[in-house]
Amino acid sequence: MPGRPFLQIPGPTNVPDRVLRAMDRSVIDHRAPEFASLVKGLLPDLARVFKTEHGRPIVFPASGTGAWEAALVNTLAPGDRVLAFDNGHFADGFAKVAADHKIFVDLLPTDWHRPVPGKMVEEALRDDTEMGYRAVLLVHNETSTGVRNDVAAVRAAIDAAGHDALLIVDTVSSLGCMDFRFDQWRVDVAVTGSQKGLMLPPGLGIVCVGPRALAASERGGSPRSFFDWRAIVRDNEAGFFPYTPATLLLFGLREALDMLAEEGLDEVFARHRRLADAVRAAVRAWDLDIWCKDADAYSHSLTAVVMPPDTDSDVVIRRARERFGLALGTGLSKVKGKLFRIGHLGWLNELEVLATVAGTELALAESGVTVRLGSGAKAAESAFLARETVSP
Amino acid sequence: MPGRPFLQIPGPTNVPDRVLRAMDRSVIDHRAPEFASLVKGLLPDLARVFKTEHGRPIVFPASGTGAWEAALVNTLAPGDRVLAFDNGHFADGFAKVAADHKIFVDLLPTDWHRPVPGKMVEEALRDDTEMGYRAVLLVHNETSTGVRNDVAAVRAAIDAAGHDALLIVDTVSSLGCMDFRFDQWRVDVAVTGSQKGLMLPPGLGIVCVGPRALAASERGGSPRSFFDWRAIVRDNEAGFFPYTPATLLLFGLREALDMLAEEGLDEVFARHRRLADAVRAAVRAWDLDIWCKDADAYSHSLTAVVMPPDTDSDVVIRRARERFGLALGTGLSKVKGKLFRIGHLGWLNELEVLATVAGTELALAESGVTVRLGSGAKAAESAFLARETVSP
Amino acid sequence: MPGRPFLQIPGPTNVPDRVLRAMDRSVIDHRAPEFASLVKGLLPDLARVFKTEHGRPIVFPASGTGAWEAALVNTLAPGDRVLAFDNGHFADGFAKVAADHKIFVDLLPTDWHRPVPGKMVEEALRDDTEMGYRAVLLVHNETSTGVRNDVAAVRAAIDAAGHDALLIVDTVSSLGCMDFRFDQWRVDVAVTGSQKGLMLPPGLGIVCVGPRALAASERGGSPRSFFDWRAIVRDNEAGFFPYTPATLLLFGLREALDMLAEEGLDEVFARHRRLADAVRAAVRAWDLDIWCKDADAYSHSLTAVVMPPDTDSDVVIRRARERFGLALGTGLSKVKGKLFRIGHLGWLNELEVLATVAGTELALAESGVTVRLGSGAKAAESAFLARETVSP
Amino acid sequence: MPGRPFLQIPGPTNVPDRVLRAMDRSVIDHRAPEFASLVKGLLPDLARVFKTEHGRPIVFPASGTGAWEAALVNTLAPGDRVLAFDNGHFADGFAKVAADHKIFVDLLPTDWHRPVPGKMVEEALRDDTEMGYRAVLLVHNETSTGVRNDVAAVRAAIDAAGHDALLIVDTVSSLGCMDFRFDQWRVDVAVTGSQKGLMLPPGLGIVCVGPRALAASERGGSPRSFFDWRAIVRDNEAGFFPYTPATLLLFGLREALDMLAEEGLDEVFARHRRLADAVRAAVRAWDLDIWCKDADAYSHSLTAVVMPPDTDSDVVIRRARERFGLALGTGLSKVKGKLFRIGHLGWLNELEVLATVAGTELALAESGVTVRLGSGAKAAESAFLARETVSP
Repeated sequence: MPGRPFLQIPGPTNVPDRVLRAMDRSVIDHRAPEFASLVKGLLPDLARVFKTEHGRPIVFPASGTGAWEAALVNTLAPGDRVLAFDNGHFADGFAKVAADHKIFVDLLPTDWHRPVPGKMVEEALRDDTEMGYRAVLLVHNETSTGVRNDVAAVRAAIDAAGHDALLIVDTVSSLGCMDFRFDQWRVDVAVTGSQKGLMLPPGLGIVCVGPRALAASERGGSPRSFFDWRAIVRDNEAGFFPYTPATLLLFGLREALDMLAEEGLDEVFARHRRLADAVRAAVRAWDLDIWCKDADAYSHSLTAVVMPPDTDSDVVIRRARERFGLALGTGLSKVKGKLFRIGHLGWLNELEVLATVAGTELALAESGVTVRLGSGAKAAESAFLARETVSP
Repeated sequence: MPGRPFLQIPGPTNVPDRVLRAMDRSVIDHRAPEFASLVKGLLPDLARVFKTEHGRPIVFPASGTGAWEAALVNTLAPGDRVLAFDNGHFADGFAKVAADHKIFVDLLPTDWHRPVPGKMVEEALRDDTEMGYRAVLLVHNETSTGVRNDVAAVRAAIDAAGHDALLIVDTVSSLGCMDFRFDQWRVDVAVTGSQKGLMLPPGLGIVCVGPRALAASERGGSPRSFFDWRAIVRDNEAGFFPYTPATLLLFGLREALDMLAEEGLDEVFARHRRLADAVRAAVRAWDLDIWCKDADAYSHSLTAVVMPPDTDSDVVIRRARERFGLALGTGLSKVKGKLFRIGHLGWLNELEVLATVAGTELALAESGVTVRLGSGAKAAESAFLARETVSP
Repeated sequence: MPGRPFLQIPGPTNVPDRVLRAMDRSVIDHRAPEFASLVKGLLPDLARVFKTEHGRPIVFPASGTGAWEAALVNTLAPGDRVLAFDNGHFADGFAKVAADHKIFVDLLPTDWHRPVPGKMVEEALRDDTEMGYRAVLLVHNETSTGVRNDVAAVRAAIDAAGHDALLIVDTVSSLGCMDFRFDQWRVDVAVTGSQKGLMLPPGLGIVCVGPRALAASERGGSPRSFFDWRAIVRDNEAGFFPYTPATLLLFGLREALDMLAEEGLDEVFARHRRLADAVRAAVRAWDLDIWCKDADAYSHSLTAVVMPPDTDSDVVIRRARERFGLALGTGLSKVKGKLFRIGHLGWLNELEVLATVAGTELALAESGVTVRLGSGAKAAESAFLARETVSP
Repeated sequence: MPGRPFLQIPGPTNVPDRVLRAMDRSVIDHRAPEFASLVKGLLPDLARVFKTEHGRPIVFPASGTGAWEAALVNTLAPGDRVLAFDNGHFADGFAKVAADHKIFVDLLPTDWHRPVPGKMVEEALRDDTEMGYRAVLLVHNETSTGVRNDVAAVRAAIDAAGHDALLIVDTVSSLGCMDFRFDQWRVDVAVTGSQKGLMLPPGLGIVCVGPRALAASERGGSPRSFFDWRAIVRDNEAGFFPYTPATLLLFGLREALDMLAEEGLDEVFARHRRLADAVRAAVRAWDLDIWCKDADAYSHSLTAVVMPPDTDSDVVIRRARERFGLALGTGLSKVKGKLFRIGHLGWLNELEVLATVAGTELALAESGVTVRLGSGAKAAESAFLARETVSP
């Protein structure tokens, strides 16, 4: 298919040319000083993206799913109990990884259209008078629905209940896209992957570990080896890893962190909000519903668009791909066919969003959905239009 | 500036990733058999793009401007006379190169909004009873105005006048974008560059030379060395060059020719027409004028858009670049400030055109030009919309 | 440091430019048909490298260490017992991963200078009259010592003992370098990584799973999630993965498998043997000992060179790196300081080996080891010299 | 052919990965501010490599041969007379370009084994009492023979003769390899290409122009267009070019200039001398002759090796290429078959030189030339050996 493809799934995201070039190089000896310098430079800069001074970022050659496992097997043992929320496909997936490792999960049902209510967290923890819950599992930005959870509110709920459960937060599709504050929200473990806001190809699973989680891993956890972060924390001191790391991705991470720093995290977040607002304006212009029903909980990484009754979102997705080289995200598990997802995260700009909106409305129209052609593009453009014109 | 830039000047065009990758490699010995194989494979495939069996493509490490010079100094001597047309900035530039080499140029004035009339060519040649004109210089697609000349009509005019002047045609922004027929139109020299329809970065000047031009170069021409194609024709027989060629660009050319063959030249031309029609629909929706006033002469490589009175096109161009990372072409020489040019040639697809249209209308609006936001996008989308919807 | 570096550790190996270029591209949607085609093409070609028709290759975004874990947690449960051999650093490491997962390991001591004796295996299994051993863990090529184990002999020993233990073989530094026959040797799980004979950067852990191992994983295994191959086997049927794979490495794997097929596995093995023989000739010319004392068990991937008494191999390694940009492998764990390792595996040719030999003898001499300068180079050259001269 | 190729012709040289990566990117608008910034940064840094404050570097999308033409047609007119020396293949070639442009060349015969004697220059100019010579053409480093001319001595000879001829110097294979002092030696035009000491792929022809040459071009010169540097000098002021430049090569040049600055020109020259000394030691160990008979005039960019009688150097070259992937330079024009050339310039280190020496002695031996295997490698290693060993 001629021209550049538009990868507008909610991750993996477009890898910037600068990052691709940084990885297009010879591998180096991962036991040599040059490598150690690279690692020692990376870790504090990565910590900055998590907004932490107390947490330690740990990088695995894995996926975000692997980082989920790392967060769990280091801090929890078979038979432990955790509190989690049936709030979306990935929230469920995270809980399932815990269950696979013989951890008991109390998975509270919630409305998938809205964030987990702080009150629900508080009540569940208050009821847990014997402090049975060792951890609360939360997904910051639910990639399957475009609903953003309020981590600060959950932290407040835990505090209000006076509970000492660890707070383990999936930030796979929020880190580097929306404000996340590891220290301020006293998160114990944050989990992410390389292929979203960090603008890398997939291949790295990353956790950020706070002091309480580190202590928990020192004295317990599950049987583990590959994901055992103790050896990594120890070897990272000298800039090394206990086994062969994904060297080239680390060079890419170096470049990506530089790019985030150059743009500035605040501006990165503002840009994501700007692009997200434009997409949502387009969805409204199409007279379609945004899945997320709480405007305060809109994700700025992606927007899930609800299909009209009797229309299969996979038809639209296939059309967008085959006709326009536009990759949109499918509806996952119980929302399959009911929604499609527009990713607007990572290394992205206004014109790419406009192309995405235009391509989506064409795909909708060609799939038999009634949309006024150009309505979404107009709405998105209006969202981008500067208020004042330049003097000619 | 975050995200992918939009290089929508009428060349250089976006280099496909495949071509970039093909050049991202070690240089090889240009006197070794591997190199000779490369060259021997390239030349016939390049001839196919010119639609010639009789012409020989010759590749210089130079620009299109250098290829102009090659066409002239090999076939014409100081004091020779040629017929040319003041039909645009590049037509004038081509004529100026001839004049720089002490060739007398009769530069006939024409309407820059329209192609060179065949009748004008015929009359000028009929008047030349002493066969003073050694060549007719023509630009197939005038990159400064978006007017496409009718090479077949000019060939017919030369024949009608019974003149034996060489027909030298600039195809810099038409080759690989619009139909060009070296053999059928009995072109004697065609001139092009690497950075437009051939989808390469700039750095190659290419000519295609027919038998009459080859004969002219054997018995005459100007003092010349670098651009003397005789040595190249001779060494190319064995797959070599008389001096160091731009090796990596030749690897890129190999990939680009493969891509043109995979898509098929007819489909490449159809795609350019489809994209061009959508851009022109957008311009009309803005109530702005297309510079070219003859619809049969529309260029499918670029569209020059006329500014309303009292508005400087360079303001729009700067706005598009600074706000949206969108590069548009400026008005050149006598049309400076009066028009801007949208390039829609090379490795390009519908969504990139829609982004370009949307960005342009935003830049226009922010520059104080009265356009209805979304109107161009809607018109372009309508041009792309498939007539039948898929069954859901 | 100017010029090209020489990465002559026993992996990661030099990534060929072709492979780097294949990965220097945009990521694609891992749920789209283009991706499925890629995966469906890769798996059978990967099986060919393992020489299997019955085994299924499974690719994880991980390291070889991760693939160890995958092999173990899918087939064995906590409390199971396995037979392993203290035959080198990586043999021990593999056993430790098992122990970390609460599997009981009987780690039999062996001579690190020689392969595991078939007889030892047979006796240990004969003694296991209650069939307590669920698996035998073996490292095909011990990367820390340059000793190659005889998998066929171990298989014969298991058969001779009439034992039904699974045979799990680490092929991390042998696959794609030396002959390995999954089907013929009735291996149940083979484990490897991307960064050695497969010529990729690190980042993939790969297992090849035979029917008995697959059956074992269906009915048992340890608590597991990320490394659970059941979901991968299931989703791979359609060309997909249950979680985000390392997309770009898979494009690289495609290219690497093509390169292995173009050269031909037999010629790849012959080349490794040729290069290895030359390195060993050089070591002998230096009057230094090859760690491996059994010539039939020489590794063709690497050679471990024993230091003279009172000389620290790390001094030589540092010198090679700092003066010549030559990366040699260090002595690991109990052989630290006693040996250094020359990697001669992957995408490598005679001249690179000669540079390595020359650089190593310079580093030795500059570290105070008595070697005749040029002696190793001469020996290696002699090994490469064609017997007959060409006619001038 | 497996492994990395060894491109040891005397140019094009190995392009460093950093430079390749810098060019592996999207093209930008050559009329936009980002491009202007690039150009304005490049020119002064390029001047630094020429060691000039008064000269202006001018970059053409061409080859070194094109830069020859640029030097000539800007400063000389048809009918002008120049002094040149038949001192090697490229000296002759430079003279031929002048003759092709109808400039009269007095080509004085010299010994190809030695540099042009200063005395010969002085006498020829003293005899030219009517100041007929407008320029002296000199090749700093004769790439066909490995003889380095003494530019300072030629300058002194011109001064001694009291002549005002321009001094035009080819530095194609010396710039960035050996000391060249544009200002101190009062060179009027220096000519080079991208593909040697500047470590780029071929595709740029570069001249450095002093005030006298600039003045000559303002008031005269030959008919010219593409190579007319006046328009470039004018447009470069604002960071632009009069026609499309080879954009990606300019990004590569940026990186290459940074690399030269990081290493430091003095260290770059010292490295070239070190590598060259080692190669010459190897040639002597083979009992073969170095073509250059004046040790003070040895080139540090390449060494031409004389074949024994009755042996064709092209047999050795073919053997080196086919067996070892080693590209050596052929004998050009009248020395064809009599010598081969080892390039040791550009981005190169000791180990690559050792591989080249080892491969060359193997190719010699396999071609029937009597050389002691390892003798060259030993000699080259000895040249590299640090005098003091490190303390263990």
